Amino acid sequence: MFEAAELGRSVSKEDYEKALVDLRPRLLAAQRALRTKKRSVIVVVSGVEGSGKSEVVNHLHEWLDARGLHTHAFWRESEEHRERPRYWRFWQALPPRGSIGILFGSWYTAPIVDRVYKRMTKAELDQELQRINFYEKMLSDDGALLVKLWLHLPRDIVKDRLSQKNRRKKKNWMFAPQAKEFLKQYDRFAKVSERAIRMTDTGEAPWRVIEATDARYRDLTVGQVLLEALEDLVAASDERPTSSTVLANADEEGVISGSKTILDHIDYRPTVDPKKYEKELEGLQNEIRSLAWHGWNEQRSTVVLFEGSDAAGKGGAIRRLISPLDARLYRVISVAAPSDEERAQHYLWRFWRHIPRAGAMTIYDRSWYGRVLVERVEKFATVDEWSRAYREINDFEEQLSDSGIVLVKFWLHVDENEQLRRFKERETVAWKQHKITDEDWRNRDKAPRYKTAAHDMINRTSSAIAPWTVVPGNDKKSARVQVLRTVVKAMERALG
Amino acid sequence: MFEAAELGRSVSKEDYEKALVDLRPRLLAAQRALRTKKRSVIVVVSGVEGSGKSEVVNHLHEWLDARGLHTHAFWRESEEHRERPRYWRFWQALPPRGSIGILFGSWYTAPIVDRVYKRMTKAELDQELQRINFYEKMLSDDGALLVKLWLHLPRDIVKDRLSQKNRRKKKNWMFAPQAKEFLKQYDRFAKVSERAIRMTDTGEAPWRVIEATDARYRDLTVGQVLLEALEDLVAASDERPTSSTVLANADEEGVISGSKTILDHIDYRPTVDPKKYEKELEGLQNEIRSLAWHGWNEQRSTVVLFEGSDAAGKGGAIRRLISPLDARLYRVISVAAPSDEERAQHYLWRFWRHIPRAGAMTIYDRSWYGRVLVERVEKFATVDEWSRAYREINDFEEQLSDSGIVLVKFWLHVDENEQLRRFKERETVAWKQHKITDEDWRNRDKAPRYKTAAHDMINRTSSAIAPWTVVPGNDKKSARVQVLRTVVKAMERALG
Repeated sequence: MFEAAELGRSVSKEDYEKALVDLRPRLLAAQRALRTKKRSVIVVVSGVEGSGKSEVVNHLHEWLDARGLHTHAFWRESEEHRERPRYWRFWQALPPRGSIGILFGSWYTAPIVDRVYKRMTKAELDQELQRINFYEKMLSDDGALLVKLWLHLPRDIVKDRLSQKNRRKKKNWMFAPQAKEFLKQYDRFAKVSERAIRMTDTGEAPWRVIEATDARYRDLTVGQVLLEALEDLVAASDERPTSSTVLANADEEGVISGSKTILDHIDYRPTVDPKKYEKELEGLQNEIRSLAWHGWNEQRSTVVLFEGSDAAGKGGAIRRLISPLDARLYRVISVAAPSDEERAQHYLWRFWRHIPRAGAMTIYDRSWYGRVLVERVEKFATVDEWSRAYREINDFEEQLSDSGIVLVKFWLHVDENEQLRRFKERETVAWKQHKITDEDWRNRDKAPRYKTAAHDMINRTSSAIAPWTVVPGNDKKSARVQVLRTVVKAMERALG
Repeated sequence: MFEAAELGRSVSKEDYEKALVDLRPRLLAAQRALRTKKRSVIVVVSGVEGSGKSEVVNHLHEWLDARGLHTHAFWRESEEHRERPRYWRFWQALPPRGSIGILFGSWYTAPIVDRVYKRMTKAELDQELQRINFYEKMLSDDGALLVKLWLHLPRDIVKDRLSQKNRRKKKNWMFAPQAKEFLKQYDRFAKVSERAIRMTDTGEAPWRVIEATDARYRDLTVGQVLLEALEDLVAASDERPTSSTVLANADEEGVISGSKTILDHIDYRPTVDPKKYEKELEGLQNEIRSLAWHGWNEQRSTVVLFEGSDAAGKGGAIRRLISPLDARLYRVISVAAPSDEERAQHYLWRFWRHIPRAGAMTIYDRSWYGRVLVERVEKFATVDEWSRAYREINDFEEQLSDSGIVLVKFWLHVDENEQLRRFKERETVAWKQHKITDEDWRNRDKAPRYKTAAHDMINRTSSAIAPWTVVPGNDKKSARVQVLRTVVKAMERALG
C-alpha cells in the first residue's frame, strides 16, 4: 500500500509558491465558514519518523488562523493520564464544533508502537483497531470530520536522512531518541502500520497516505487535502444523513401501547425491618468506609451512577452512600444543563471530563443515560442519535471497566401513587420545596414514555461488566439498604 | 487564640435536630438565591488532624443542593501539578460565579506543613502568607466570598481520639498515615497555624476558628457560619464597593491631553539590512530550535506573549518564532472572546488554564493584558477593576517566574501612517481580508486612548523578572529579528 507513496513526486519552488497563492486564502475562507457550522475538523498527523510531521503542523499553523485552531501533541503521558482510561486524554483534546483540531500523535500511536515492539499480540492490535473504528465513527456521527494523514518515507530515504542529520545537526537530532531505533525496526513498523491503516480506512474516516520525500510536495498535498475536506464540509448542510442502523423498535408509540416493561414487574414490598434499619445501614456504611480506603490503597476507582423516576429517592440514597466516606475520596457530579464548552462537544465529553483519577469514587446524580432518557423523550436528540447512543455508552462503560474502574448503575423506581404522594409532600415541607417544579408535574404526564425509554435502556445497556440494578423505591429504607449493599458487593468483588 | 475554641461547648441531640429544621431550608434557599448572583462562595475547610474536616464536608453535602456545589480535596499532587506554578491547581478548583466551592485542604496546607517540618524558614512562611492575603483579596475583589473555617481540637482530645480510634477502628484509621505523626508535632503545629491564621485574618477573608470537640456543636456552627455568610451575600447588591486604591492618574482624559507616552519616542528606522535578513533570521531560528530542546531537557518552560497595535505584525512574528520549533514543544493560545465557563471566573482564570507543563513553550497571541488595554479603553472593566489588575498581573507573573518559567513580553508598535497603509493593503489582498474588520477601523479612532493604556501598562508591569520589549514594527524584518533575538537572549540567560 505504500508503493503509491514512493513514486518520487516533487514540486518545484516556483510551483509551490504559485499554488500557495491560491491555497492560503481558500483555506482561511473555509476555516472562517466552518465557524458557523456545528461541525469540527480533526486532523490526525501521523507517519514515519523523520517524515516531517512537525513541519507539517507548523505549516498548518502558518496557513490557518490561530483562532479556532487547537493543536495537541500526544507524547508525554502524565500520572493524570495513566490513572484514567486510555482515551481520556484524546477526549480532552477534541476540538469544539466550528473549529479545527490538529492531533500530532493520536490514538494510533500506542497500538502501532506496542505491536512493533511486541508488547501486544496481533489479536490485541486488531481489537484496538476495532475500538478506533468505533471511536471515529462516533465522532463522525456527531458531526466531526476526520482527516487522517499518514506521511510516508521509503526506507532508504529514512536511512539517508538519519545519517545526514546525524552528521549535520547532531546537536538537535540527539533529542529525538527513538529515531535511530525506528530505522532498525523500519520493516516491522511499515508492516504494522500498513495493517493499522488498512483496517481503519473507513468511509467515515479515510486515510490519506502522503509521499513525504519532497517537503514541498508533502506540505502542498496536506494543504490541498485539508482544503478539499474543509470546502466539502462547509458546502454541506448541517443536517446529518440518517443512518440505516435505526432500531426496529424506535417507534415508541407501538412499544407504549403494546407490551409491558421491566418496570411493571417491580415488587415494592419492604425488604428491611424498620427496627433493624439503622443498624443495618450503619453496618453497610462501615463496610463502605473500609472498602473506599481499600480501593484507594489499590488505586482502583469506583463510579456509581443514579438514574430513576422523579422523587424516587436518588438524593437520599446518595447522602447515605457518601456519609461514611472520607471527603477526599469521592466527588458527586450533579448533572445539570451543559455549559457552552460542553455543548460544543460530543455528548459523552462532559462525562469523560469528570472521570476520577485512580483510587477515587465518583458519584453521578443523573448521567450519560440522559441521552436515551430525557433527550429521547423530549426529542432533544433525534431517533438516530439516541438509537446509536446505546452502543456508544456500552463502549464507554467497557473502557471504564477495562481500566479497572468498578461501575455500579442504579435505576430507582417508585410507582405512580407513591410519586404523587411525594410530589405533594415536597410542596408542603419547607426544605423540600426546591425539589419540586412545574417541570416535574409535566414529566409525570410523560411517565409512559419515560418508562419505555428506561425499559429499552436497561435492556440494551445491562451487561456483565456494567449491570443495572433496579431498586424499588417505595420503601425508602429498603431502597437505601439495597443501594449500599450493591455497592459493597461490587467493590468487594473487584477488590478481592 | 485557640483558647476560645477550648471552652468545651456542646449541643444536645435534641437542640441539634431542632436547629437543623430551621437551618436546612434556609441554607437551600440562600444557595438558590446565590445562583442568580455574579458572586461565588469559597469555603475553606482546614484545621487540626482528627477534628472532623471530612465529616464537615459530608454534612455540607447533605445540607446543600449538589447542583452548584463543587468540592475539591487537595492532597495528592500529580506531575501535572508539580510541573506548574503551585497555585495552578487552586485556580483550577475555583467555583464559578453563582455556586459554592468547598475546598478540603487549600493554599494553607503546604506552607503550614512545610514550616512545621522546618522545610521553610519563618521568613519564607511570612512571604507565603502575604501571597495568600493577596490571592484572597484578589478573589474577594472579583466578588468571591471567602468562608475560612479552622476546626480546632485541644491537645488532650487529639491524643485521646487517636488512641481510641487506634483501638476501635484500627483498620480504618491506619490509612491516614500522618495522623499519629501530627500528634507528636501538636504544639509546633498549633504555633505555626496560629501565626498563619493571625496573619491571614483579613477584612476580606476572616477566619472562623470553630471548637470541634463536640461533633454536633462543630457541624451546627459550620452550618450557621455558612448560612450567615450566604444570607449576607444574597442580600447585598451585585455592585462591588469602590475600593480606595484607584490610581491617581485614572483620569484618562488628563493623561491623553497632557504628556507624551513611551510610544511617542519609538525609532522606526530599520535595524536590519534587507539583504542579510534571511540569513540572520535563519541563524536565530536555528538557535531557537536548539534552545527549545534544551529547555525541554531541563524541563524549563517559556511563555512568550504578544500585545500591540492592530496590524503591528504580531501574527508574522509568531509564525517566524514557531516555524523552527518541534510541534510537540509549543502551543499558540489565540485569545478570543471568553466562553461562559471562563466568564464565570476571575479574568486571570482562563490564562492560568493554559499554563504549560514543564519544558514547553506557550505563545499567547494577546493575553491577560487585555484587562488593562481593551477592557479599560472600551470600559468593559471598571476603573477599579483595571486599576488593581496591574498588581494582580505582576503577582501572576512573579509566580510564573518563581516556578522557573521564562517570560518574554512584546509590545509591537506601528505608527499611524504605517497602520493606515496596512489596513488598506489588508482590504485589497485576498488572503489578508479576514484580518481587517470594521472594528479595526473603529479602534483606530481610539488610538490615543489605547496609547495611554499601553503606556500605563508598560510603566506598571515592566519588572526585572518580566520586562516589556517594545518593538518598532514599521519595518517588519527588523521587528521579526528583534523578537527572535529577544527570545533567544531570554532563553539563553535562563538556561545558562
